Amino acid sequence: MPTVRDVAERAGVSIATVSFVLNGSKPVTPATRQRVEAAVAELGYHRNELARALASRKTRILALAHPTAEHRFGSSTTDFITSAARAARARGYHLVLWPIDTDGQEIHDLLGQGLVDGVVLMEVKLDDPRVDALAASGTPYALIGRTRDPAGLVHVDIDFDRSVADALDHLQDLGHREIAFVTAERPGYGPKVRSEAAYRRLCAERGLEPLLLECAPTAPAGQGLMPRLVERVTAVMLMNEYAAFGVLTGLARAGLGVPDDLSVLSFTSPDMGALADPPLTTSHSPGAELGSLGVHALIDQLEGIEPSAPRLVPCTLVPGQSTARRP
Amino acid sequence: MPTVRDVAERAGVSIATVSFVLNGSKPVTPATRQRVEAAVAELGYHRNELARALASRKTRILALAHPTAEHRFGSSTTDFITSAARAARARGYHLVLWPIDTDGQEIHDLLGQGLVDGVVLMEVKLDDPRVDALAASGTPYALIGRTRDPAGLVHVDIDFDRSVADALDHLQDLGHREIAFVTAERPGYGPKVRSEAAYRRLCAERGLEPLLLECAPTAPAGQGLMPRLVERVTAVMLMNEYAAFGVLTGLARAGLGVPDDLSVLSFTSPDMGALADPPLTTSHSPGAELGSLGVHALIDQLEGIEPSAPRLVPCTLVPGQSTARRP
Repeated sequence: MPTVRDVAERAGVSIATVSFVLNGSKPVTPATRQRVEAAVAELGYHRNELARALASRKTRILALAHPTAEHRFGSSTTDFITSAARAARARGYHLVLWPIDTDGQEIHDLLGQGLVDGVVLMEVKLDDPRVDALAASGTPYALIGRTRDPAGLVHVDIDFDRSVADALDHLQDLGHREIAFVTAERPGYGPKVRSEAAYRRLCAERGLEPLLLECAPTAPAGQGLMPRLVERVTAVMLMNEYAAFGVLTGLARAGLGVPDDLSVLSFTSPDMGALADPPLTTSHSPGAELGSLGVHALIDQLEGIEPSAPRLVPCTLVPGQSTARRP
Repeated sequence: MPTVRDVAERAGVSIATVSFVLNGSKPVTPATRQRVEAAVAELGYHRNELARALASRKTRILALAHPTAEHRFGSSTTDFITSAARAARARGYHLVLWPIDTDGQEIHDLLGQGLVDGVVLMEVKLDDPRVDALAASGTPYALIGRTRDPAGLVHVDIDFDRSVADALDHLQDLGHREIAFVTAERPGYGPKVRSEAAYRRLCAERGLEPLLLECAPTAPAGQGLMPRLVERVTAVMLMNEYAAFGVLTGLARAGLGVPDDLSVLSFTSPDMGALADPPLTTSHSPGAELGSLGVHALIDQLEGIEPSAPRLVPCTLVPGQSTARRP
């Protein structure tokens, strides 16, 4: 790999002059600048970014800390991670992956290595020892998700109030009044707790009778809800993407059909919803957008840019063929 | 964050002595070692890994280069990435994510920054300009997947010959002789090309009539294959996980059933297969294992450990309820 010395020789200038041009640290004549830039291009010279980073006491490396076992609903985690890495690169940063346990010790040890300028923490829990470890470390961070009381914390998250309201709107517009909500068994999981609270509040405001159920995140568990559920409601929303498939199977086995006997709305990706028969009406979480927003919020903080208000982004409802007018 | 000076003060020794203990660079008395180690533990001192890395001219940072748009069959990319990052950490390395285009320029630019000791390249194509860029850079690398002629390249990949043979064995053991193979439309994609070649060769060896089809990677495309396919075969293997769902739908709409009228085997994860009705017989790619093996192959190279032979890992067949004895 060519060195700064090679560039200086090729351009016929001193190493210091090359440095002046590359760092813009001292004015040089246009002719000299041109010679240096030509030599850089001809040799394919790149500065040693790491040495430069150390000199500035910044590594320009960020960590994306994510749980090792994780079940993000309704969105591909890959989209999320890819989008975060691209956002970092667009602003001149690299993103390292830290798959970590949820107890706080692992992130504490990693922070102690001094490698990263900041951390984006995914899948934040309502009570999260990793957030405490971050706060104690003094390392800047941004959260994807929220603790129980996120006031003052830089975070981005799904707008659960709006997402549940949009789903209810869709079903109410079709004439449904008895609308169940099925989540996955996962105590203390923010998205579950917040969306259940939104559902209860909205049912109260709209004069609907809430029917809140939970089951394991599997197709057989969803199947087990049928056909009993049909006796109580005409529509169901599921924040449990695997169970949604089981609901269809369970209905079919009972000789019932979607959407004739039950309207089904699933919080999942449209790709996943398209695998069902009939294709599901879906509401998908803004995974890629949150990945990018989280990284930008962190970098703004690192670069002293005034923080914008915490961003809450709603899920996007995509009508399929599994919801229809109330019979 | 405590410094090496703090450790020295607490232990009542010189900074040089702390360094001797931490680096093992000079023998010290057991009592001194104990004092230093106690001070390190009490203060929660961590060496600045980055400064140490630079001093050794190694960053101990690896890149995982993966395409921005990618459709790995039969396995969660998240498993893959997480497993790669954990393998790196287990050996004292960090893994940065490089989502890159497939033309070679982007990886060339990133390599020029001098940040990483080596690169693991995912989703290698038969003819891959990124591999050329890596070879030209002199940076050590390992491939997940193979170019057309991988001789001499450090790589790990799926054992497609064995995976297709296992799938055929399963169906032939059930008495099937007319077995179609459906892949996704994706020209020049290694897994497709290699598994199709394996299917053709195995059919010739076993005296089976091959029926090789391809369709778009969507449920409707799979649905479009039905019911025509049933007239020609009694079993189908799909390396097209979305189309497999469409096959079930298409059969059901024609009043036909799985496995009574057609046995279906899908190269996908058992989780995904469990969403279908009936639950699919699946063969899933060893994503997590390949992620880990790729990282270890790269680190072995970096650390001068004798390379093991390229590892080819077969998919794992998990019988479901979608395959049965030939009617």
